[in-house]
Amino acid sequence: MKNIFEKKRILVLGGMGFIGSNLAIRLNKFGGDVKIVDSMLPQYGGNVANIDSIKDSCQVNFADIRDQHSMNYLVQRADIIYSMAGQTSHVDSMTDPITDLDINCRSQLALLESCRLYNPGVTIVYASTRQLYGRPQYLPVDEDHPIEPVDVNGINKLAAEMYYTLYSQVYGMNCVSLRLTNTYGPRQHLQGNNQGFAGIFIRMAIKGEKIKIFGTGEQRRDFNYIDDVVEALLLAAASRKLKGMVFNLGAREHYSLLEFVQHLGSFCDFTHELVPFPAEHKVIDIGDYYGDFSRFEAATGWTPRVNLHDGLERTVDYFKSRGHLYWGE
Amino acid sequence: MKNIFEKKRILVLGGMGFIGSNLAIRLNKFGGDVKIVDSMLPQYGGNVANIDSIKDSCQVNFADIRDQHSMNYLVQRADIIYSMAGQTSHVDSMTDPITDLDINCRSQLALLESCRLYNPGVTIVYASTRQLYGRPQYLPVDEDHPIEPVDVNGINKLAAEMYYTLYSQVYGMNCVSLRLTNTYGPRQHLQGNNQGFAGIFIRMAIKGEKIKIFGTGEQRRDFNYIDDVVEALLLAAASRKLKGMVFNLGAREHYSLLEFVQHLGSFCDFTHELVPFPAEHKVIDIGDYYGDFSRFEAATGWTPRVNLHDGLERTVDYFKSRGHLYWGE
Repeated sequence: MKNIFEKKRILVLGGMGFIGSNLAIRLNKFGGDVKIVDSMLPQYGGNVANIDSIKDSCQVNFADIRDQHSMNYLVQRADIIYSMAGQTSHVDSMTDPITDLDINCRSQLALLESCRLYNPGVTIVYASTRQLYGRPQYLPVDEDHPIEPVDVNGINKLAAEMYYTLYSQVYGMNCVSLRLTNTYGPRQHLQGNNQGFAGIFIRMAIKGEKIKIFGTGEQRRDFNYIDDVVEALLLAAASRKLKGMVFNLGAREHYSLLEFVQHLGSFCDFTHELVPFPAEHKVIDIGDYYGDFSRFEAATGWTPRVNLHDGLERTVDYFKSRGHLYWGE
Repeated sequence: MKNIFEKKRILVLGGMGFIGSNLAIRLNKFGGDVKIVDSMLPQYGGNVANIDSIKDSCQVNFADIRDQHSMNYLVQRADIIYSMAGQTSHVDSMTDPITDLDINCRSQLALLESCRLYNPGVTIVYASTRQLYGRPQYLPVDEDHPIEPVDVNGINKLAAEMYYTLYSQVYGMNCVSLRLTNTYGPRQHLQGNNQGFAGIFIRMAIKGEKIKIFGTGEQRRDFNYIDDVVEALLLAAASRKLKGMVFNLGAREHYSLLEFVQHLGSFCDFTHELVPFPAEHKVIDIGDYYGDFSRFEAATGWTPRVNLHDGLERTVDYFKSRGHLYWGE
């Protein structure tokens, strides 16, 4: 990996956020010339504390991906672009769908146009999502599963992914999309209650609060520890054989929400209760989901290495001493 | 039909265009209280000549569907909205993808938000397109066929269609989408060469020019005469049983491009030649396409009634005396 990323000019869009910052730190270790681009929208997980360890050895450029003029300039000298900036709340995508569209759909097309015009040889890795499948019709969900998003976020992320594939097919650009599932770990966005349940549960567990699980708690999901996701993102950029392709990530094991909370209970002292689904969550809930990642495994050799128990331990360790930087007290 | 549309307040977005104007004229005949909304973008087919016969008995409001403030107001008193305004050129969607996105995707979501907030009981019929299927994997193409758009227009129209379905599912709004195939007939947009081949061929045939057919001319397509499409649009709004659903239109017969030109030859005097595909067309060409419309037929009884020969005769008759209003000489 060092050979591949050393001295490469790498743009990490959303690089102050959870996955972007962990990725930037790893790229920095490999000698990559990393430039972080982030808009620092207060509710979206960008946090200067995330890049504390590399702040003197990478560049930071504050810009919103909706700002096409800046993006036109910023893309020009990059060898690799990681497109990690996004609005990730499913609930927010329903209450403010146009903002979700502008960030998750329009800005992605604009980024591709910037690259097509000013840097068509660049490699782009796009962080897509399992949300676009909607409610699974079979499990595990592979990449050929029907696409029936149950919220605006899923539709916009799908459109964006299709732009990336299209630009590879039509213009020969080197784009690859990874459909991420529930990612957790250090530097995760833990503030607020509109993000995924994993972050909310981890924060409440560490703070010793009572965790509310919607429904029966038996919904099964797959979880990827952040280091495994970073590894996947590195592999996605390392080969030009993946051009125009789309891959699931996923995990070998899957857990119910109740089991997730029980694992957290090994490291934190808290209580939990089952509560009925709030209406605005129920209508966009997808039920059980776990993905089949064998296509990506076959293409790159990637496999998730950190199990949920170990991953949660590392996550809790990270946040226990740093909570004030993440939820402000 | 008269019972259904009489005195109903009906907004026809894109009502100066080809399909919108034919629809507005029919709704007007049924006693509908029709308001046409159109931006009159010069290259998009809006033409005041199209509504000459009803200009004193309908309202016309010039506004762009990207103008959300006006749209918020305009939707408020409507019983039915026909969302027919759009950028339809596949080639233009590649050279100016952001404009295609703003009109075909962002404005559709904004329209739904306007309706959700100010008129959630309205019925909306959305003019979608067979373009979102991409290159057929089997024929005839039914609604369960994989969705793999080959151009930005197809992706944006798909996203819009998904918003309509989603708003039906989540908010109970009464939206239905029809995937139109090649529609032709009086009031068609005949100017310029970036629209579909049917309009280009009809114009050149009437003007006695030499028609250039890309490739072998053996690509097969299905064609709907405008009156059949208007009938389908009426049926789509007439029943609330179709809420959230998506339907193909289509024809019982399909023709090669060469056969289409030969039929035109019954009414016009011109020559034709086969020429190699220009690169920018080849890369987004979908090859043979014809659709299976049995789902819509079963749901509404709709069936196409005008065959290609008769439809072309009526089309040529319409334009022969009015060409100066459509291609400016």
